[in-house]
Order: sequence, then structure tokens, then C-alpha cells
Amino acid sequence: MITGKNYIGVDTSAKNNRTYTTFNPKLNKPTEWVFHEASQEEVNAAVEKAAIAFETYGKFSDAKKAEFLKAIASEIEALGDELISVYVQESGLPEGRAKGERGRTMGQLRAFATLLEEGSWVEATIDTAQPTREPLPKVDIRKMLLPIGPIAVFGASNFPLAFSTAGGDTASALAAGCPVIVKSHPLHAGTGELVASAITKAAKKTGMPDGVFSNLNSRDSEVGQLLTMHPKVKGVGFTGSTNGGMALYRLASQRKEPIPVFAEMGSINPVVVLPSALEQKGSEWAAQYAGSIVLGAGQFCTNPGLILGIKGQALDGFIANLGKEIEKLEPTCMLHPNIYEGYEKGKKELSSQPKTAEVAAYKGETTPNFGEQKVLTVAAQDFLDNPVLHKEVFGPFSIVVQCQDKDELVTVIQHLEGQLTGTILGTETEIKTSPEVVNALVDRVGRIIFNGVPTGVEVCPSMMHGGPFPSTTDSRFTSVGTSAIRRWVRPVSFQSWPEELLPDALKNNNPLDIMRLVNGEHTKKQL
Amino acid sequence: MITGKNYIGVDTSAKNNRTYTTFNPKLNKPTEWVFHEASQEEVNAAVEKAAIAFETYGKFSDAKKAEFLKAIASEIEALGDELISVYVQESGLPEGRAKGERGRTMGQLRAFATLLEEGSWVEATIDTAQPTREPLPKVDIRKMLLPIGPIAVFGASNFPLAFSTAGGDTASALAAGCPVIVKSHPLHAGTGELVASAITKAAKKTGMPDGVFSNLNSRDSEVGQLLTMHPKVKGVGFTGSTNGGMALYRLASQRKEPIPVFAEMGSINPVVVLPSALEQKGSEWAAQYAGSIVLGAGQFCTNPGLILGIKGQALDGFIANLGKEIEKLEPTCMLHPNIYEGYEKGKKELSSQPKTAEVAAYKGETTPNFGEQKVLTVAAQDFLDNPVLHKEVFGPFSIVVQCQDKDELVTVIQHLEGQLTGTILGTETEIKTSPEVVNALVDRVGRIIFNGVPTGVEVCPSMMHGGPFPSTTDSRFTSVGTSAIRRWVRPVSFQSWPEELLPDALKNNNPLDIMRLVNGEHTKKQL
Repeated sequence: MITGKNYIGVDTSAKNNRTYTTFNPKLNKPTEWVFHEASQEEVNAAVEKAAIAFETYGKFSDAKKAEFLKAIASEIEALGDELISVYVQESGLPEGRAKGERGRTMGQLRAFATLLEEGSWVEATIDTAQPTREPLPKVDIRKMLLPIGPIAVFGASNFPLAFSTAGGDTASALAAGCPVIVKSHPLHAGTGELVASAITKAAKKTGMPDGVFSNLNSRDSEVGQLLTMHPKVKGVGFTGSTNGGMALYRLASQRKEPIPVFAEMGSINPVVVLPSALEQKGSEWAAQYAGSIVLGAGQFCTNPGLILGIKGQALDGFIANLGKEIEKLEPTCMLHPNIYEGYEKGKKELSSQPKTAEVAAYKGETTPNFGEQKVLTVAAQDFLDNPVLHKEVFGPFSIVVQCQDKDELVTVIQHLEGQLTGTILGTETEIKTSPEVVNALVDRVGRIIFNGVPTGVEVCPSMMHGGPFPSTTDSRFTSVGTSAIRRWVRPVSFQSWPEELLPDALKNNNPLDIMRLVNGEHTKKQL
Repeated sequence: MITGKNYIGVDTSAKNNRTYTTFNPKLNKPTEWVFHEASQEEVNAAVEKAAIAFETYGKFSDAKKAEFLKAIASEIEALGDELISVYVQESGLPEGRAKGERGRTMGQLRAFATLLEEGSWVEATIDTAQPTREPLPKVDIRKMLLPIGPIAVFGASNFPLAFSTAGGDTASALAAGCPVIVKSHPLHAGTGELVASAITKAAKKTGMPDGVFSNLNSRDSEVGQLLTMHPKVKGVGFTGSTNGGMALYRLASQRKEPIPVFAEMGSINPVVVLPSALEQKGSEWAAQYAGSIVLGAGQFCTNPGLILGIKGQALDGFIANLGKEIEKLEPTCMLHPNIYEGYEKGKKELSSQPKTAEVAAYKGETTPNFGEQKVLTVAAQDFLDNPVLHKEVFGPFSIVVQCQDKDELVTVIQHLEGQLTGTILGTETEIKTSPEVVNALVDRVGRIIFNGVPTGVEVCPSMMHGGPFPSTTDSRFTSVGTSAIRRWVRPVSFQSWPEELLPDALKNNNPLDIMRLVNGEHTKKQL
């Protein structure tokens, strides 16, 4: 049931008279629920509870934390149709997407549980003593990863489940041993509250301390700022716009004690179309990319917003095919009128830039809040000369950049900002003879894809979802996949520590049976 | 030979008329060498060269980078007595220390070479395709660590070799594949230039690109600021004061593109003396700690600046013994008159705080620039009430804090700022019954030591030299030991990438024979 209240650990609270509602973009009217924004007092209460919870939760065994994560997945499932219904109402996204995203969210939680159950993620590293070493004896030192403390999580508008309340940031922080305070996304506060209730139930059932999780309603930026500046918050996970992410990053850097802010801020995801790709299957790629551009009304951080090709008949043919395919597709509902308006504004701004030409656009009937796709084309030199064309337009929009030759293609790639993904379409033979293209692209992105589409982000250990600035604030970390846990942990060394008091991960007999680095060797052997 | 010029890759350059000299603190007069501060033009030239060098150096095999690191070690050794002589003149430190630190510096370089030769550090992670997976097929994704780009390194005053020009920051960045621009420390610019000449020779001999290393003279903060703000610098490594580190951190956070700044800013390294330690070997600990406090004129970031004990006869006895031992020791020369004056000022400030009492101080003859040791004592409540007493005094100085009981001891620990190290002295039996003390200390430090002294930082995989703020700007990384390489790398995923074009670390047949995570299993097996 949606109460509109904040979850301060196990307590619900609504002390603030500042309220807001969510919005059904398909019906183009507000939903029925009223949410109480968290007051400063409530923000502080949530953080204080988290700090106290950290004292116990941060020391729980991986097995115990895994139970909690699995219970969250089960409780989310147990929310049943109500969750799907609220998700659909608040997001305008179809039921199939809601169910798929719910599956992904539960999958993520269970993937972190599996990581914990396996246990090697703590990077246990042991160097044993050498009392007779010359000129100085060597002491016994053992190191492992420990959690850093309470984490503030800012959910994304475009993934009400998988990147929000119990999404990847929350799952990774809880897995690390860090309590989480979620700043609920105002566009899907109801979905958020339902998930928060599931997490709270799971916490109770598995014996977690009060304050291990809180969910704070927030209609604008104030709650997020209070969280980011609170001295007891030790890290921030954010998915959203560049403006939002950078505001938090700069705010946090002014704290007396700086803290890590991992912000994933989007990307235009360049796609390089080599001539061989067009010769072999140009029309197939055109159809596939039209689908990828329009998928989910283009509201993905991996949406292909930029297609780079080399001028010529083949590219002309591809552009014509892409245009035909783009016009065939039906627009879908965007997340909120504000997002729709932002899309329209961005599309208009880029379309009105000199020396751009329309490739295709949706020409049918208009429905309120439905994002109508559009594709432009521009010559490479004009693209290079105009920074406005490098901007992300969040929605079903893309630009085809026509380069004179491979050299100009490389120049364009080198002048792109950092990106989450980069894609190359072509034959193996051609890509082998284009190392300058590959190198330039690898330098700009976190994930490079061969003959595929960037949309679709697999949750697995090998996933890097993060890239050079401004796609994220720190390219050294990922926000998707099990490695996301690394953002919330720090190594601690135990020197000459009594065997009996060592954490299990560092004990001689390796009771957790984990992979460790012992005197430079990767091994599961006992000492 | 010391020329006083900047090293811009393979070129030497002295375009600036702003010059300075180094100082021999033992003779209390300037040295003979004159250094030309790097001009803005020279700073830019060094960074531009580094950015170009990165295009090739960043792609070199680990084996090739290892050759370079080993050659640097050999060339430093080949500098022979000149290096030792200049080091001693510029630092006031004894010859034995110079030779020991040289050994450590070469050892660090060779340790990173070994890490590269073994190769598993890139964290190769492979998830193979599952084309028949439902509801969606799974693509092949493979991830490894790649270097982030040119790194600016700021050397430490107190380690002219091991934490400076070719110290841990430089060695780890070069190992990662990142070119390095060193901002030479003004107190040992001659030592720095000699080491820079060795690095440059090694680079030539092993075929490294011009610009892989530069060394810029700097008499104050300007060169460092220019480096930190240069758009092509992608990370900063710093060892020094809190003021210096935080100035760089805040400066970098104002860049258009934020970059990681890893600053190691020191620590007062609390030592908890449990009653059982005093019963069993109180006088031995007193002698050992007097030695640790005075070692190297107390100019170590791991110097024990705070000793916490529980009031009573045993602690009184320990304090008396510590005082006797402290008075027996002879002061040694500090690095520079400015550092000596800073020490005297800090010592005077803390000594003049109300409710503190002198335990002991050196009473003999005074020698210019020799740091005279002093130990104070204070009651825990007075310590808690007075933030001035929590400050680091860089030199042979320490405070014994007397707590009423274990609860007050825990309170004091909880109110300490973040520290590089924490130490507990006691019996295994007593430490077992004091989990609240251990937990409080682990929460505040990067390395926890049982029955030892914090000075002496082993260079090995299990070393964590870094801790919660303000000991460093990011507790998730270490600046000592082979894990220091992690600061300068980012993961990149290759999706559906042609086998032949994959980096060796990710190829099916595992040609580098490294440990990899393949479909969730740690293995060296071929696919």
C-alpha cells in the first residue's frame, strides 16, 4: 500500500507539509497518491540510524548479507501486480517493460548474493612473516576490503526499478556492508515506496539492524543536498543528468571531509559504421538501429545518439534505409511531461543548427507525451565546429555524421567527450585494418561493442557501465555488474594480527574457501 | 650531473629566470646548485608530450613496461655515490638512510616489474556468450584494466627517493601504462634531477616514447597548480601536508573534467596501550616507542603521535619510563629550516595548551635545525575538549592521553580523525575481550598493528597505506604496495569482440597465463 510517507528505517514518517504527487503521462494527469517530502529532521534521523546500523551491519558475514539481498528479491516479487500497476502508471512504460525490469532488479540482487556467497570479492591478500629476512625482518600483513559507511543513492528516472530504490547502487552498497539511504525519485515515488516496503520487510525477516535502509521522498533537490552534505554519509551513487550529477559532485567536494560521488550521467554512444558493414548488411543494420534509437522512447543511457560513417553511395543508401525504418515505427510514451518537453526542446535546438539536414522523423498523429523520433545528418566538419551537436538529447533522436574519409572519422572520435559505450559495425577484416579507429574509440568509452547495439546492459562480472567524463565522474568504477561493489569498500591491512581474531577471509585455514593472493600466488590453499 | 634544468621528456630546458637553490640543513647554508623553475610553456610542453606518449606507451605490453621499470632501478643504482651525496646534502638525513631508501626505491620499481611480468593485475574477466539463453541471448563480454592517461606526481619532502621522483606514485603510474610528469620537490631538487636523468636514460635504452616521463622544477605552488588544472592530466598523486593535498583536491574538483586526486596527507597514528601490555613488558615498549617517536627526527607519516592508555599505576610507570628513554636519545637534523621551524611552532602551540603536562623533552645542547623531541600528557576529557591537541606535529613529538577506563578509551578513538595506522599493544587474551576497542580503531584507520610500531611500511601486495580522511583524500586506494596501481586504471569491456583483436589478457587461449575470472570461476585455464 502506498502511504506517501518516508521510511526512516523501520518507521514511517510524514512530518513535512510539503507534498507532491506523481504523474501518469499516458493519461496525462496526476496519479492518486500524495507524498510527503522528507524534512531536514527526517533526513538527519535516517542518516543517524544508518550510522548506528553500520556498526553492526558493516560487520555481518557475507552469508548473512546474502540472505538479506535474496529476501529483498523475494519481497519485491511478492508485491505482485500492485508494483507492476504503479510502475506502469508512474512511468508510462508498458507492462512488459515493467516485468522485465522487475526481473532484472531481482536478478541483480541475487547476483550480488551469489558474489557474497562465493566470497572472493573481498580480495584477501596475505604476505606471511619472514623473521630472518635481511636487512630487516618482514612482518605478517593481511589485507581485505571493508565497507566505508552509509551511502546515499539517487535513483534514475528511466529505470524505476533496476536503477532506483533497490537497483544496482543499493544492491551493491548493501552487498558491501553499507547501509543505504535512498533519495526517492519524484517521478516514481509510489513505485519507490512499494520497493522500500519490500526492503524493510526483508530487513525485518532476516534480522537486519534498524536503519540499514531508509527511503526519503523528495520533490526537488533539497533532500539530496542535505544527504550529500551530511557528515555521516560516506559515499553517493547517482544516475541521471549531467547537471544533477555534477551539482552533487561539486557539492560533495566542498565538504570538510570529501566523499566519493559516483555519478553516471549519460552518453551519446557513438556508433562507427565502417564501409564493409554497409556492403554486407546495410539494410539490416538500418532496421536494427532504427529499433535501437526508438526503443523505450530512446530513454536509455546507452541509446545510440550518434552514427559515424564515411561519405559515399553506401552511406547514402544506409541513411535512406534508416530513414524509412525510422518512419515506420510508432512513438511511445515518455516518462513525464517534463521529460517530453526536455526532449522536444533538445530536438528543436539541434534540428535548428545550421548545416544539419533531416533524415527522417515521425510524421503521424501526435499523442501527448509521446516522444516522436527524429534523425538528422551533418557533415563531419560541421559537427566538429558546433559543440551544440555533441549534446545528449534524451529521447528517440540520433545524428548521422558523414566523414570524408577514415582520417576525418578518427578526428571526430577524438573530439568526442567521454562515453559509456562505443560501437563498431564492419567485417573482421576491415576492423583489423582500422586500428586507429579502434584505438580512438577505446580511449573514449567504457564498453566497446562489435557488430551489435549499445542498448542492453548485461549484469555480469565483465560489465563496465561507466566511462570517461562526462559519462561518469570516475571512470575507474562501474555502476552495473558485480564489480559495482568496489565503489563502497576500502582495503584494511591487519599487521601481526592474532590468528584467532583475524576476519575469516584472512585466517590461515581459509574457512570461507575463497581465492586469495598469498605471498604473490593466487590460491585457495590453507596456510 | 646537476644542471638545474627541467626535463621535458628527453629534452632539458631552462626558459624561466625564476631560480632557486636547495639547502643543506646540517651545514645550515644553501647548496651550490641553482634550479630554473618550469615556466607555463614548459609545463604545457611536458603535458603535451605525455599525452602523445600515452598513445603508444599506454598500449605497450606489460613485459615491455617491466623492462623499463627494471632499467630505471638499474640506472638509479648506476648514479652511485653522487646520488647518495646529494641526497644527504639536501635532506640532512644520514648516509645509511639514503642508501636504505635507495634500496627501497629500486625494490619498489622491481616489485611493480614483477607484478607486470606475472600479469594477473589487469583483472581479466570473461563472460562467454549464451546464444540460447531465455528470454534474451547473452553476448560475450570481456573486461580488463587499462591506463587512464598522463599523471602528475608530487613528491614528498621526507622521502626524497621512495616517495618522490621515481617513488611509489611514479612507479605505479608507469606500471599502469600512464606517462608521468613529476613536480619536483623544492627541498631536494638536485636529488630529483639525478633520478630524472636516470629515468630518462632508462626510457631511451628500453625504447620508450619521448614524454613518458618529465621532471619539472618548482619552487612554490604554481607549477603544481598548472599541472593539476591541465586538461590532459588525468590524475594526481600527492604525498605531503593536509593543506597542500586539500588545495590540490579542491582545485581539481573545479576542473571542467574532474580527475582523481590521491593525496596522502599524514596522520597521528594512535597507539592503544592496553593494561596487559604494561604488565608484561611496559619498560620494553617504553624504549621501543621512544625510538619510534624520535626515528628520522619523527619525519614519518606513520610516526606515533598519540599514545592512549588507561589511568593507573601501570600507565604512570610507562610514562615515566618513556620519559627516561626519550631524554636519553640524541636529536637529529630535520629536512629544512622551514620544517624545523614548523615543528618548533607546532610543538610550542600544543605544549602551551591548558591542562597538558610535559612528560619529557630533550634537555641537551641545541644544534641548528635539529628536531628536539618532546612528549606531553593530557587527560582524555581535556584531549576530547581541545581540537588543537588532535593536530599532527610533524617531528619527534607525541602525546600520551590518559583515559579513565575502557569506555573513555573507545570514546577517544571514536573522536579521532581518519588515520593511516592504528596500533594496539597488549596480550592476545586482553585484545580478545576488547572488541569495542578493536572495532573503533579499525573504523578509523587503513592499517591496524598488533604489538609493533607503526613506522616501517612494507612494500607488498597486502600493504594498505591510506586511510579515512584526512589521512588521505580517498580511503579506497593505497599509495604503497603493488595495489597502488589501481589508482591509475579503469576497466574497459569488449563486447562480441573478434578473438584475434582482443588484448592478449582476454584471448581464449590465455597466452599470458594469468589468473582470470571466467564465467564466475577464478582460473588460468584456456577457453
